[in-house]
Amino acid sequence: MENIRINGREYSKEEYNRYFYGRVRSVIDKYRVKGKIAVAISGGKDSIVMLHVLSKFNFELLPFYINIGIPDYSEKCMEYAVNASRKYGYEIKIINARDYGIDINHAKKKCSVCGTVRRYLMNKFAFENECDYVATGHNLSDTVTFSLNNMLNVNMMNMRGAKPVMEGNKKVKMVAKFKPLYWLRDDEIKIYAEINSIKYCEDICPYAKYAPTIEVKRWVHELEERMNGSMENLAKSFSKIEDMMERTEPRTCEICGYPSYGRVCKFCKLRRAHEKI
Amino acid sequence: MENIRINGREYSKEEYNRYFYGRVRSVIDKYRVKGKIAVAISGGKDSIVMLHVLSKFNFELLPFYINIGIPDYSEKCMEYAVNASRKYGYEIKIINARDYGIDINHAKKKCSVCGTVRRYLMNKFAFENECDYVATGHNLSDTVTFSLNNMLNVNMMNMRGAKPVMEGNKKVKMVAKFKPLYWLRDDEIKIYAEINSIKYCEDICPYAKYAPTIEVKRWVHELEERMNGSMENLAKSFSKIEDMMERTEPRTCEICGYPSYGRVCKFCKLRRAHEKI
Repeated sequence: MENIRINGREYSKEEYNRYFYGRVRSVIDKYRVKGKIAVAISGGKDSIVMLHVLSKFNFELLPFYINIGIPDYSEKCMEYAVNASRKYGYEIKIINARDYGIDINHAKKKCSVCGTVRRYLMNKFAFENECDYVATGHNLSDTVTFSLNNMLNVNMMNMRGAKPVMEGNKKVKMVAKFKPLYWLRDDEIKIYAEINSIKYCEDICPYAKYAPTIEVKRWVHELEERMNGSMENLAKSFSKIEDMMERTEPRTCEICGYPSYGRVCKFCKLRRAHEKI
Repeated sequence: MENIRINGREYSKEEYNRYFYGRVRSVIDKYRVKGKIAVAISGGKDSIVMLHVLSKFNFELLPFYINIGIPDYSEKCMEYAVNASRKYGYEIKIINARDYGIDINHAKKKCSVCGTVRRYLMNKFAFENECDYVATGHNLSDTVTFSLNNMLNVNMMNMRGAKPVMEGNKKVKMVAKFKPLYWLRDDEIKIYAEINSIKYCEDICPYAKYAPTIEVKRWVHELEERMNGSMENLAKSFSKIEDMMERTEPRTCEICGYPSYGRVCKFCKLRRAHEKI
């Protein structure tokens, strides 16, 4: 196998894997992550690579897949999620949004509804299984693009959570969040998948055809090419901004008892809206 | 004269000037800027355009030039500053850094020393002349480049002051700062100078040959080209970040009585260092 050229360096397969694990370990060590971890698998490159990497560490892992019910797409993603879990020695738990009476295909703001449903169900799954963390595949490219895009839209409130680990809050049934790939870029993750023969679903969600952040993502990668380390430093700055932001303590939803910033949580509001249809 | 094409629009000279004054007026109105204003003139495009624009409003203006004493360069800039002031009906006050025993030509960190000297002397001049504000030519391109560069260097403390107007504090002899060109970009200011036949010094400081921010500035303008309004929105976000930052109240310098964040202010420390030489 040829050597890997990236970040102005050259790596053998072993060296690259060591580098990759080191980036993940830096998060684990800094935040002393340990114990039982619910692992959110979407079937795409980030989440399957995340499972592969986490399996090298000493954690108890509970992979789960949220079937949001998008025709063809969700089934295909699920297949990759199930196969990868099996291959790495785990039994994956399938959670069906349909069982909660939610059908995203009839929603107006599909991406927003999908986000609410996923966030809610992953926290619920992790809490019910007494997990210490719920791990997601968010990577450096996405984090930086998302935060910069929020700055470009003067939407500072969305800068919340721009950190590798967010503490939980048992009082309101909120499980801590853990992003193992926080310091790794899209291209770095693709290389890891390639050299370790990791298979993942390459399809793009049929509802996410128009992504306004594509320009911003390209722009961020252009700067990274000219100044290696730009994205890492931007992420560090976003994290410092996050630290400066006022905390609003969530309370519990009157209906389901899970965290909410209003009397009723977004998920229960969605369910109510669906019942009326 | 041909029409001006910029920001996806077309303007006649009158329309462009009206647009330009509108951007300046938005700062004046929002922060209710009025009274006596010390105007910092460097001789470059921004400061001379600023003086030209401010002269259209109902202010009492006191332009001043800080002669930092760089061979050839400072003299040439001064000529432009003096000529412009005279042309617009003002007598400019010349302040010589040399009179304070400071010779930047022998300093190691020239740009940093120059910044300290300018900030100190402009505040002192404005305070002694009982001005309500000291106006500087900082524009949108510089502000956004500077703030983004700080984020790229994870230097959040330098994000302080990313606002069109910063309040003063009489107790510590600190005069309010006012940036009339805060919402205008480099290219917009150049057009204003051109269509109004404003002459300015185009030389670049011989000590500022290496500017690490050039790449960042180009990057910012590339995004602006693709998404008009990006720079304005970034500046708004930086201003919100500024609002979130903790305030450290300055005290007064034990030696000179002007604002300081330590026992002795940076300017007095510089003077002491020079005396020792």
